[in-house]
Amino acid sequence: MQRITIDPTQCVADTLRLSDEQVHYLQRVLRLKSGDLFIAQDGEGQQWQSQLMTEGYAQILTKLATPQRPATLELVAALPKTGFDDVVRQATELGVTHIQPLLSKRTLLNPSPKKLVRWQRIAQEASEQCERTYVPKITPPIGFSHWLKGKPARIGNYFCVARVNAPGLLPCVQTLLSDSPQQSLQVVIGPEGGWTPGEITDAIAHGYQETSLGSGILRATTASLTALAIISSVKEQLL
Amino acid sequence: MQRITIDPTQCVADTLRLSDEQVHYLQRVLRLKSGDLFIAQDGEGQQWQSQLMTEGYAQILTKLATPQRPATLELVAALPKTGFDDVVRQATELGVTHIQPLLSKRTLLNPSPKKLVRWQRIAQEASEQCERTYVPKITPPIGFSHWLKGKPARIGNYFCVARVNAPGLLPCVQTLLSDSPQQSLQVVIGPEGGWTPGEITDAIAHGYQETSLGSGILRATTASLTALAIISSVKEQLL
Repeated sequence: MQRITIDPTQCVADTLRLSDEQVHYLQRVLRLKSGDLFIAQDGEGQQWQSQLMTEGYAQILTKLATPQRPATLELVAALPKTGFDDVVRQATELGVTHIQPLLSKRTLLNPSPKKLVRWQRIAQEASEQCERTYVPKITPPIGFSHWLKGKPARIGNYFCVARVNAPGLLPCVQTLLSDSPQQSLQVVIGPEGGWTPGEITDAIAHGYQETSLGSGILRATTASLTALAIISSVKEQLL
Repeated sequence: MQRITIDPTQCVADTLRLSDEQVHYLQRVLRLKSGDLFIAQDGEGQQWQSQLMTEGYAQILTKLATPQRPATLELVAALPKTGFDDVVRQATELGVTHIQPLLSKRTLLNPSPKKLVRWQRIAQEASEQCERTYVPKITPPIGFSHWLKGKPARIGNYFCVARVNAPGLLPCVQTLLSDSPQQSLQVVIGPEGGWTPGEITDAIAHGYQETSLGSGILRATTASLTALAIISSVKEQLL
């Protein structure tokens, strides 16, 4: 069923006060009419069967079961020059729970603060379309050293490198998740120009497992999706 | 090293006559100067170390080793409404050898013949950028029934379906390729609205193995890339 993400403060008793944008989306994009049903979700697992009324209101009919929160799967990606919107959208489809854009030495982009709002909206829309009750959290872009600082070593943290004889991400994730399927995972993807040797050394010193996505050359955006497609398939395999 | 794809008829003895477009690409995009080296490839495995000269010529210095032709990996994808350019580009990065655009019952697009030229050019450029000596072949869009007609049943033909309790593509491919790593593979991806029940029945009747990409909902373009990312990772794992 069609769904939209709301802020719980929009609910007063059994009435949901819709924003102009939500009314537009429900009526013009999803083509719902007064009396039609939809699901309102808070992006945090709560969801309500709702009925569209007139004048910007909806009636909350019943609270639906809250699905189990998925195990943490974080994508940490050095911002590519272009294409990060698509990465956010596709990463959401593939079940990511957190996205951390990274400014590495070879990152060329310094995004405006508006971008974060845009990415969060894309993640929300993609969640609605692919019926994911938990909307991924996107944190503001952060410099590589700042991000790594004080990070405790943890298994399930993978640092993807190109053109290096590192173990493949697929066998690494298969081995780890077959022992502990609910393990939190974090996968780190470099920028177009790759990591600097110093960045690789630093990540390994912080306990990151160096992994490879294969001997081919992938663009940064394709690399993010490849890593998440692998992890998502392994999770499905072990369900 | 930077590379461009040429037509072997451009070579006369040790001289390569460049087209205006190729000169522009070498000098303006790749910023090569007279005397700089690059690789000219025919997209079929042959490649030559070459040196840029003036006036639209290059000198062929030496023929490089022809890498082994990769095992066939064909993506058959019902054309999505938008985003097929990106599918072609990313599929090339992920090592596809053939792409067959498909017109299924729920395909909304009927592309102009110009599109095929465009897709082939994208595949060529992506091959150059990710240093793939074999450029994928893209065949003209074809209707579903016509495509399936007379096709012999073959192992390694996977038909991806959404929201169905089918075996996962990952374990299927892992089992098959661990026995015969050079097996030809074909993976078929549906349109935004999914396959019709009739199309699924027909494909199975022609020996296709029904497979799933997981319980999540993926857009058509993400599904193509997910399938190829899985196959590419399994191939790497077995290298």
